Amino acid sequence: MTRPPLTKDTRLCISLAGRPSNIGTRFHNHLYEVLGLDFIYKAFTTTDIVAAIGGVRALGIRGCSVSMPFKEDVLHLVDHVEASAQAIESVNTIVNDDGRLTASNTDYLAVQQLIGEHGLDPEDTVMIRGSGGMAKAVGAAFAGAGFRTGFVVARNPESGHALADRLGYTYVADVGTVTAPIIVNVTPIGMAGAPEQRELAFGAAAIAAADTVFDVVALPSETPLIKAARAAGAQVITGAQVIALQAAEQFERYTGVRPTPEQIAEASALSRA
Amino acid sequence: MTRPPLTKDTRLCISLAGRPSNIGTRFHNHLYEVLGLDFIYKAFTTTDIVAAIGGVRALGIRGCSVSMPFKEDVLHLVDHVEASAQAIESVNTIVNDDGRLTASNTDYLAVQQLIGEHGLDPEDTVMIRGSGGMAKAVGAAFAGAGFRTGFVVARNPESGHALADRLGYTYVADVGTVTAPIIVNVTPIGMAGAPEQRELAFGAAAIAAADTVFDVVALPSETPLIKAARAAGAQVITGAQVIALQAAEQFERYTGVRPTPEQIAEASALSRA
Repeated sequence: MTRPPLTKDTRLCISLAGRPSNIGTRFHNHLYEVLGLDFIYKAFTTTDIVAAIGGVRALGIRGCSVSMPFKEDVLHLVDHVEASAQAIESVNTIVNDDGRLTASNTDYLAVQQLIGEHGLDPEDTVMIRGSGGMAKAVGAAFAGAGFRTGFVVARNPESGHALADRLGYTYVADVGTVTAPIIVNVTPIGMAGAPEQRELAFGAAAIAAADTVFDVVALPSETPLIKAARAAGAQVITGAQVIALQAAEQFERYTGVRPTPEQIAEASALSRA
Repeated sequence: MTRPPLTKDTRLCISLAGRPSNIGTRFHNHLYEVLGLDFIYKAFTTTDIVAAIGGVRALGIRGCSVSMPFKEDVLHLVDHVEASAQAIESVNTIVNDDGRLTASNTDYLAVQQLIGEHGLDPEDTVMIRGSGGMAKAVGAAFAGAGFRTGFVVARNPESGHALADRLGYTYVADVGTVTAPIIVNVTPIGMAGAPEQRELAFGAAAIAAADTVFDVVALPSETPLIKAARAAGAQVITGAQVIALQAAEQFERYTGVRPTPEQIAEASALSRA
């Protein structure tokens, strides 16, 4: 499969990251080819985010995915910030409609959609492990979906307290001390290549007490935590699902076309190979 | 022939024009494929040239071809203006070296190279018909190559006088009144699709008196003037040669690779098909 020759009408989408990878470039270009869309996608970096976003607007670059360390900076450089990005003061997606830039956060949107699809009950307590940028997105998605009681478990008391306060949840320093019907890992524990890749983000008691285990780690898709949760008979939500959904959402915002889950899965696999 | 998949390391070159065409996009992308270069090229337009050039710098866009109406505006937006662009206060090429933008004018450079290749003698008088932007470039190239005596023939007395004064040449209102060993047409006379497409920019006497006839009109490559000059036994220089040389120069500045004349000719033909 090859794309038709570029023309002046071919739409360009880009990403901006401090350390660009090839994943987005492969993912989007593969789907453009599969779906016959006259788009191209390429990762960029910059040392001047203000001028880079100004260039996105002035050049009519259709979409701009935003990664670290620019997710907060761009809030002030766009024309409209959607609730998904406002809730966590973090942008991962900018869409350019004839020079008007709209920012959103498709990680937040994906988590909210997964909460709904899996029938999670807002009356239940959620326990979130982690207090970084993605934990903020996951926590805000739960809080935004109406989950009023929760725990934030984090080694770092400063960011842990800050996130718990923000969500109206309770900060817990030690993972072994509480259980909840919904438990969510938003740390690198269990991630391929991480020092804690063979560890479990929650203990056996917490897993046994949970109805739903959600691991935001996407690589491998079957993390030690997901495996233990399946063995314990819990409902699972995987990081691979988050990534696929957020990517589909981003792709649709840029192109107006929603790939099928199978197309997303194939493009994801290919882009990470 | 197809290009390899885009990656984060693929270099992007663009053009900025008020009314973009597909010619540059086809030309450069074809040569990237032929030469196996990991580049892509796409035409853009903008309503904000300052932000667009800021974006070129901030995004590390490698090269930017500049067309009407931006050729003068960008003089003040780059870090360095080469003599070729300074001489005519008009830019058609910007190269980005790690955020440092250098502007040049490859039309000027191409004409100067053709003057040299064809052994034109600076002691000879040159007669230039036309007083627009390209006439300015051609005239400056002759003046810059040491041609001290010349005529500028133009219907518009204002721009004609201005160009003649600039070059130190003599303004002539009526094309029938003078002859010169080198005559150059820089008007649309003889251009396919122009109202004067079947006309000659110079009369039979001027053609007969000329040693060299230079027609900047590129389409068709054999204009009525070029045909008449060949019939009269004069040396000819064609607009197709100007375009090919300026494009090769631009291509080399962006990529570091000089295509062969055959590759340029093939890419030109393909891009205008």
